[in-house]
Amino acid sequence: MSTPGRFIAFEGGEGAGKSTQGRLLAEALRARGLSVVVTREPGGTPGAEAIRALLLDPPGEAWPSQAEALLFAAARADHVAHLIRPALARGDWVICDRFVDSSRAYQGGAGGLGDPAITALHAFGSDGLRPDRVILLEGDEIALSARLEARGGAADAIEGRPAEYHRAVAAAFRAFAEADPEGFARIDAIGTQADVHARILAAIVDLLP
Amino acid sequence: MSTPGRFIAFEGGEGAGKSTQGRLLAEALRARGLSVVVTREPGGTPGAEAIRALLLDPPGEAWPSQAEALLFAAARADHVAHLIRPALARGDWVICDRFVDSSRAYQGGAGGLGDPAITALHAFGSDGLRPDRVILLEGDEIALSARLEARGGAADAIEGRPAEYHRAVAAAFRAFAEADPEGFARIDAIGTQADVHARILAAIVDLLP
Repeated sequence: MSTPGRFIAFEGGEGAGKSTQGRLLAEALRARGLSVVVTREPGGTPGAEAIRALLLDPPGEAWPSQAEALLFAAARADHVAHLIRPALARGDWVICDRFVDSSRAYQGGAGGLGDPAITALHAFGSDGLRPDRVILLEGDEIALSARLEARGGAADAIEGRPAEYHRAVAAAFRAFAEADPEGFARIDAIGTQADVHARILAAIVDLLP
Repeated sequence: MSTPGRFIAFEGGEGAGKSTQGRLLAEALRARGLSVVVTREPGGTPGAEAIRALLLDPPGEAWPSQAEALLFAAARADHVAHLIRPALARGDWVICDRFVDSSRAYQGGAGGLGDPAITALHAFGSDGLRPDRVILLEGDEIALSARLEARGGAADAIEGRPAEYHRAVAAAFRAFAEADPEGFARIDAIGTQADVHARILAAIVDLLP
């Protein structure tokens, strides 16, 4: 490929369809002959997956919120250095299920650490790498929590936090998108998989070679 | 105890006798009726020990240096929140084998990340907690590396780094001590265990109740 690699992050609350829609987008891009890497955060490399395990199942007491934010940033630094940047340098597309905006929304916004702190950790850890486009999947909360219930409820310590926490997350994502309308595509996540997929394709068509 | 807890960190290169001298100091303090917690970094709590394991034996490729610094800061945040601050609040003395000055000397100095970055991570993660006194064990490099050899050589990935790395670490520690002569006691680590112990006791006598 002589075209540049593109970095697409899927963001949104639990049950919004990030991983399903990421896979559908990858298939559509591959059908156009593009080379696509699908990955996720926290995780994506052996080091970052080991950190993910510590985050989702703390070996001792719950992590202090600052330690949690540092672990997310460490996992991201490994993922960016060892997987995302090499893939983009090869000209691949990278589709990532969650990236730094999740840390900004969860630890920075809902968790109260503040956006400047999370942004500073990302600047230090990953040289502030930004996706070419963030696909923010948004939906009515009642519909999304029904979808989450249908797949068996909350899967880990973060999903299991109270409703006001998840409302604060959604509000933070919305604020990031409003502050950076070029970088974010706000996508209505309610509808059939095919409908949502079509909305996403339309939102990245300008990035295609 | 109605006297305040005191926080003593032992710093220096490998083979300087930090853990041995920390234990001897703890015994001397206990003999005076003080309650003493002996701990180490990275580690000291179940969460921080799990991070230590990832640092000393990376599950994938070597950690990027930024990820390594973030992991040290995360481990320290857990250790400070769950062990060091509670112990000091009870009025205990805390003796810690390595603390933030090791991150400053190894990752910041010898590793090239710079002191402002490491200090900022510590301000974020642990509210910038400083020891009441840092015992910096210094010695002629040849004598210390002979001591390291005698216990079987380098034990892990960091100890095994080249000699110029360890010289840069020693120079960084020296610079920190020169910049903060109240906070650091520079102790000649060459001599019998009893001699070095006596020097250390003399260097903390003003902190005793």
